[in-house]
Amino acid sequence: MRLEEVLAEALKIVKPTQADESLLKNVIGEMENILKDEISRIDGILGISLEGSAAKNTWIRGREEADIFIHFDKNVPRDEMEKKVIEIGFRAIERAGGKPRLMYADHPYVEGVVNGVTIDIVACYDVEPLKWLSATDRTPYHTRYIIERLKPGQEDQVRLLKGFMIGCGVYGAEIKVKGFSGYLTELLILNYGDFINVIKNAANWKPPVAIDLERYYRSTKEMLEIFRNQPLIVIDPIDKSRNVASAVSLTKLSEFILASKLFISNPSLNFFKPQMEKPSVENLKRLSAERNLLHIFFKLEVERPPDVLWGELKKSEEGIRRALERLGFKVYRSGSWTDETESCLLIFELDTLKLPNFAIHKGPPVYLKTAEDFIEKWSGKAIGPWIQGDRLYVLRRRDEVDVVKLLKRELDSNRVAIAKGLASLIRNAKIDHEADGLIRSAVDNPSMLNFINSFLKAKPPFI
Amino acid sequence: MRLEEVLAEALKIVKPTQADESLLKNVIGEMENILKDEISRIDGILGISLEGSAAKNTWIRGREEADIFIHFDKNVPRDEMEKKVIEIGFRAIERAGGKPRLMYADHPYVEGVVNGVTIDIVACYDVEPLKWLSATDRTPYHTRYIIERLKPGQEDQVRLLKGFMIGCGVYGAEIKVKGFSGYLTELLILNYGDFINVIKNAANWKPPVAIDLERYYRSTKEMLEIFRNQPLIVIDPIDKSRNVASAVSLTKLSEFILASKLFISNPSLNFFKPQMEKPSVENLKRLSAERNLLHIFFKLEVERPPDVLWGELKKSEEGIRRALERLGFKVYRSGSWTDETESCLLIFELDTLKLPNFAIHKGPPVYLKTAEDFIEKWSGKAIGPWIQGDRLYVLRRRDEVDVVKLLKRELDSNRVAIAKGLASLIRNAKIDHEADGLIRSAVDNPSMLNFINSFLKAKPPFI
Repeated sequence: MRLEEVLAEALKIVKPTQADESLLKNVIGEMENILKDEISRIDGILGISLEGSAAKNTWIRGREEADIFIHFDKNVPRDEMEKKVIEIGFRAIERAGGKPRLMYADHPYVEGVVNGVTIDIVACYDVEPLKWLSATDRTPYHTRYIIERLKPGQEDQVRLLKGFMIGCGVYGAEIKVKGFSGYLTELLILNYGDFINVIKNAANWKPPVAIDLERYYRSTKEMLEIFRNQPLIVIDPIDKSRNVASAVSLTKLSEFILASKLFISNPSLNFFKPQMEKPSVENLKRLSAERNLLHIFFKLEVERPPDVLWGELKKSEEGIRRALERLGFKVYRSGSWTDETESCLLIFELDTLKLPNFAIHKGPPVYLKTAEDFIEKWSGKAIGPWIQGDRLYVLRRRDEVDVVKLLKRELDSNRVAIAKGLASLIRNAKIDHEADGLIRSAVDNPSMLNFINSFLKAKPPFI
Repeated sequence: MRLEEVLAEALKIVKPTQADESLLKNVIGEMENILKDEISRIDGILGISLEGSAAKNTWIRGREEADIFIHFDKNVPRDEMEKKVIEIGFRAIERAGGKPRLMYADHPYVEGVVNGVTIDIVACYDVEPLKWLSATDRTPYHTRYIIERLKPGQEDQVRLLKGFMIGCGVYGAEIKVKGFSGYLTELLILNYGDFINVIKNAANWKPPVAIDLERYYRSTKEMLEIFRNQPLIVIDPIDKSRNVASAVSLTKLSEFILASKLFISNPSLNFFKPQMEKPSVENLKRLSAERNLLHIFFKLEVERPPDVLWGELKKSEEGIRRALERLGFKVYRSGSWTDETESCLLIFELDTLKLPNFAIHKGPPVYLKTAEDFIEKWSGKAIGPWIQGDRLYVLRRRDEVDVVKLLKRELDSNRVAIAKGLASLIRNAKIDHEADGLIRSAVDNPSMLNFINSFLKAKPPFI
């Protein structure tokens, strides 16, 4: 397909219909009326505003959502503000017929689904720029910045970029993804003009990449010095001290760069809706044959906000990875999955499931005092010691070589850096290397089965 | 045992008896007479001299040997000198009833055993110091230097040091050992006074160590700069540009340091005559159980001087070691053995005999042009590619995982840096990992069996 055709078809996927739009506008109108009524009885609230993609006309089809902000006077104490937004949010969503749920990002907010539209009711302080009291105070300024600058037609360019990023698996600033936020996609469109120009530029990025729409900084060098170790730096136009892309990991940035290259070489609708076959048990078994897959499965006991849970999972995955490397295994890859409410799964692909029977153990150089202690310590308990170069070595027989038993021992003696909140769950988890058993146990869980499938394929959706 | 008793007993081991001494003197006298007669008929020869331990009265019991040097005029061309010393040597040894053998160090010499005494007939040029024409020209000056300076009683101190070094496996400058020469032991005794003082000092050495008896250099720093990467530097008193200890490897130096420490801590006669039990097949099988031992056995077709053969073996051992590491194995240890005439054996102790089925393969960073080629190259042929950080990776299935087959393939395609002289022998060698078979095949070969035993024990004799 030619590029123009691909973009025309892609736009059909990402652009809401008139009916979608009316529905969203109606739900928002209803929520605004309810909220205006609710806040009228409460002191310290200055008004409400619509923020996010609905306000900017950049939401994409099927992801209708409305962020409604309640503006507090800056003299209202933080805890009172939090208490009030929870109360108002719960009542408002219930009045609209939704089921309110307490969420937590930088501070608490209330979420509910009303007529298929996700509503987030969020508190912020009404402050002047750079006098932020809470993390959400910038949002109304972000919204205004984008609305004032997006030219007619650029909303759809934002939608194409979001759709491309969703299709390629790099959209979302949450810990689960560590990718691109909605605001970031809008700034990229403002900076490069349209979708294809973003892609053409990204295809030539070499991290670190720095973008400064308002030219706050004199040079890229200056930005790199201030925002060290950040692969993508996009200076917030309303706050020069903030990197809008701080959540973007090097891996996700690299995936976006590569996806952009491949799209330029070979434009295709697949980048917007990747073909993910429904994995069959037979296929998964074939894919996992002869591979060394350690997995850890456990159930949650207490629910927590998704970002908290994903943070714990990623930290634990990294800690277990390091523990396995320390034990002598090579960890080729690892991955985490959760349904965010009940079950969690960590998978590690290893070079082997059993360590060699003997391990080499390096002792001190012969000229140190400790050389004699080393000989005394190991004599009769190991092969050697011998001397190679200026050092002593022994070959010691491992008392355990099985990865499951070794990892359990490390976990039991608290030598693995896992998240505190998951420590006892992981210690009591099912730890196993039978891929067939894992696949069978996931048969009735499409989300888990999909994760296992994409872990086994080990390919981003755009390749 | 107290130190004094140990030294008294050790001296009995290393010091020749009056009968030993008479025998050696008689053989030397006979050889000198024969040689004087032989050279009288030949032009360009200025005389003969006794060199080596017999001349310096520092040989040790059971190692009776006489180095007789034939001094050539410096105008005799090198090839003529070589031809003449071979002719004279062969005739002289035959006349004395021995069987002459052509040897080769820096240049050819003739060896034979007469009445149990090893006779070496060597050529040198009669030149002034520092005007050396061949490597052996220094020897008469070495001999004179030692004879003039060794005080009565110090000869026995040299004998103790040689005996200690033999017992600890560090004596001998030849490639097989890479240890201490006789001349080096004599210089150490001159420098430190007596055996126990050498040992006490060596116990505190930290390589690199530099000794300069004639104080040719201003500082240790200066010597270390000139003799770079040499762990032990002993400046030749008759030639300041030469390191007498240049053959000493870091490993052998370290073994000597450690042996000295252990002897000081616990003086024992074992350092002079290590207890080596005769290895039984059962013991060897027990020792090798569950260990991963790759061995290469082959027979020589052409005889060569021991130092040449050992050089080839060590080079090949190192090349195969590197090839195995490159293939993905860890080589814990390796060793070579030969009877110097017929059979050769190389052993490698590995972490495993089979590589994992899958190997990780690191591709280019996504921002390079080659990223797309990498994807094209591996798509469908490997698991992945995926992105981690800024790079592409795949997991590829190995087509061969067995160490014997992998090594044979490397050898067949000439990718192993083995000595040219052994290349075809090693390519056609018996390469196997069955330790039991190796042990059985060595049952009637005590030298090979001893090597296998000490390889399996992986301990120097003094530990």
